[in-house]
Amino acid sequence: MTAVGTALVDIDEIRDAARRIAGVVVRTPLLASPWPGLWLKPEMLQPIGAFKIRGAMTAMSRLSPETRARGVLAHSSGNHAQAVAYAARAFGVPAHIVIPDNAPARKVEATRALGATVELVPVEQRFSRPAELAALTGKAMIAPYDDRNVIAGQGTIGLEIAEDLELMAVGMAGGLAGGVAGGLAGGMAGGLFSTVLVPVSGGGLISGVAAALAALAPEVKVIGVEPALAGDAADSFSAGERRAWLPSDTARTVADGLRTFSVGELPWEHIRAQVHDIITVTEDEILDATRRLALEARLVAEPSGAVATAGFLHHHSQMPAGNAVAIVSGGNIDPEIFRMILEGSSVRD
Amino acid sequence: MTAVGTALVDIDEIRDAARRIAGVVVRTPLLASPWPGLWLKPEMLQPIGAFKIRGAMTAMSRLSPETRARGVLAHSSGNHAQAVAYAARAFGVPAHIVIPDNAPARKVEATRALGATVELVPVEQRFSRPAELAALTGKAMIAPYDDRNVIAGQGTIGLEIAEDLELMAVGMAGGLAGGVAGGLAGGMAGGLFSTVLVPVSGGGLISGVAAALAALAPEVKVIGVEPALAGDAADSFSAGERRAWLPSDTARTVADGLRTFSVGELPWEHIRAQVHDIITVTEDEILDATRRLALEARLVAEPSGAVATAGFLHHHSQMPAGNAVAIVSGGNIDPEIFRMILEGSSVRD
Repeated sequence: MTAVGTALVDIDEIRDAARRIAGVVVRTPLLASPWPGLWLKPEMLQPIGAFKIRGAMTAMSRLSPETRARGVLAHSSGNHAQAVAYAARAFGVPAHIVIPDNAPARKVEATRALGATVELVPVEQRFSRPAELAALTGKAMIAPYDDRNVIAGQGTIGLEIAEDLELMAVGMAGGLAGGVAGGLAGGMAGGLFSTVLVPVSGGGLISGVAAALAALAPEVKVIGVEPALAGDAADSFSAGERRAWLPSDTARTVADGLRTFSVGELPWEHIRAQVHDIITVTEDEILDATRRLALEARLVAEPSGAVATAGFLHHHSQMPAGNAVAIVSGGNIDPEIFRMILEGSSVRD
Repeated sequence: MTAVGTALVDIDEIRDAARRIAGVVVRTPLLASPWPGLWLKPEMLQPIGAFKIRGAMTAMSRLSPETRARGVLAHSSGNHAQAVAYAARAFGVPAHIVIPDNAPARKVEATRALGATVELVPVEQRFSRPAELAALTGKAMIAPYDDRNVIAGQGTIGLEIAEDLELMAVGMAGGLAGGVAGGLAGGMAGGLFSTVLVPVSGGGLISGVAAALAALAPEVKVIGVEPALAGDAADSFSAGERRAWLPSDTARTVADGLRTFSVGELPWEHIRAQVHDIITVTEDEILDATRRLALEARLVAEPSGAVATAGFLHHHSQMPAGNAVAIVSGGNIDPEIFRMILEGSSVRD
C-alpha cells in the first residue's frame, strides 16, 4: 500500500493512520471561532497539548514488534519529544530523546515526566547525536516530520476536517439543525470553506493536511503560515526551491516550535505539489493571536500554535474569499510568557 | 412521550434533545486531564462559551412555530442570556433578555452582540419583570433551569459522557488502540469511571446529567459541586429539603454563574432521586482550579466552570474510588479577573 521514493502520501495511508491512533488521540471538533469566517481545529486538546502525538503514534505503531521492543530514539526541541515519549509509554517501550539545550524548560520537564530518558545537547549536535545513538544501539528513530508515516499521522487532521466540512454541507442542505447551522455560519452560502491555514516548521503537518484535502476536498486551498523571523518555507515556496535559513536566524521568533530552519525533503514534495501559498506573520501578530485565542476563544495556545490564527486575523485580505479553518497546533506555553502575552507586553525569550 | 407533573426527565427526552441540537451545539470530546484519574468535559468550547446553549436550543426548538415567531423572553445573570440570544438568532426570532444589574459587564455585552434586546433591572426584579413582560406581550419564556426541556437539553452532556465511557470500555476489551488507551488511563482497571462531577446552581445541568446516567450508566455516581459561599444546594441535600439562601449571601462567591440562591423545583426532584452527594469548595480552591485548568490543561474556564475540577483537585478523598469526569461548564471570564487569577492573586469582584 505504501508507495516508495518521493511518491506523495496518499489517502489510504492517512485512513490507515486514523485507525491506528483511534482511542489514544482526541478526535478534535471543529469550533466556530468568535471571528466571523474562521473555524478552529483545537489540537492543544491532545493529551500532550499538541498535534504531534498523531504522527508519533502512527510511526510507532508501524514498527515491527521486535524493533519497537528495543526502544526508540527521537530528537526535538519540544512537542515532538513529548509525543514520542507519550507514544513509547503507551506501547510500554523505552524512549531516548535528544533535545537541544536552548529548548523551553517546560517542554524538557514534560518529556521527562512522561518517562523518557532526556539527553540535552548543544544545538549543533541535534542531528548528529541521535544518528550516532541509532548506529550504536540499533534503536529506531521516530522522525519529527521527514517521514511518510509521520506525515500520514498528521494528515488525520485533514481527514477530520474534511469529514466535518462534509457534515456541515449535508446539514445545510436540509433539516432543522442543518438549516440553523447554515444560518449561524453566516457566509457559508453554498457550504464553501475556501481555505485551511496551517503552521509550517519542518512541514510534516501541512503535508499531511494537504494530502488529505487534495483527495477529499480538492477545492479547499491549503495555505501555510510561518513567522517572518523563521520564514524559510515561505522563502522556499516563492523561490520554487527548498532553502535553509541559519538556525541563529530562525531562533529569533517567539514561536519556539517553528524554529526549524528548513522543511524536510518529503514535506517539500508535498508543499510544492499541493500547497496553495505560504504567508508570514510578524511577532506582534503572533502575540496578538495568542492573546485573542485565550481571551476570546477560550483556548490556551502557545505562540507556534497561534500562527495560523494570526494569519487569518491579520492577513485575511491576502486569502481566497470564503470561510477558513485555522489549525491551533499546540498549547504548551510557559506560564510566565503566557501572563506577559495576556498583559499585552512584547515578549523576548 | 413527555411525562407530566414531577415525573423526572427520561432518556427518550434527552435523546430527542440531542437530535434537535445537532449541528448547532459542539459534540465535545472527553479529554484526559493532566491530573491522574480525572477526565474533563470542556463545555467552554461551545459557541457561546458555555453548556447553556444545549438547554436553550432544546427549549426553543420545542416551541410551536407560531409561538416562536412572536419572539422569546429570558432572565439570567449571564450565560443563559447568551444562550437564549444565540438560539433566537439561530431561529431568526427576537429575544428580550432581562439581566440583573450586578451581572458581569462582559456577559451583558456578549448578549447584546448576539442581537438580543437587553433590559437591566435591579436584582430584586429579576423574576418579576420577566413575568410582567410575558403577561404583557404573550411571548414565551425560556427558563434557565426549572423546565424539563432545558433539563433534557443539558442532559445531552450526560448522554455524550455515557457514549464515550462505552467506547473506552469497548476499546479496553481488545484491539491495539484500546489496549493502549486502557494503559494510558492508569487506574481504569475494569473500565470503571466511578464519578461525574457537576457544578450546581439552579440545578438544570446536574438534573439532566443525572437523568442520562441513571438510564445509561447507573453505576456511575453523580456528585454536585458548589461554592461554599453559595452552598444552598449542599445545604438542601444534607437537610433533605429544598432550602433557599439570601441573594446577598450567594452573591459573595467569585463564581458568578452559581449565585442562584435555590435550586428549582423540578431540578430538586432529580437531585433528590438521582444525585449521590453535593460537596462544597472554597473560593481559593475555585481560583486554584481556574488557574490550573489554564496553565496545565490549556482550557480557559470561568470560576463557575472550574468548581467541579476544584472538587476533584481538593476533595478527592471524599469521593468514591476510581476515575472521575469533571464538567468544565463555561469559560466566559473577564480578562482582568483572568489575569489576576493566573498571577495567583485572590479576587473579589
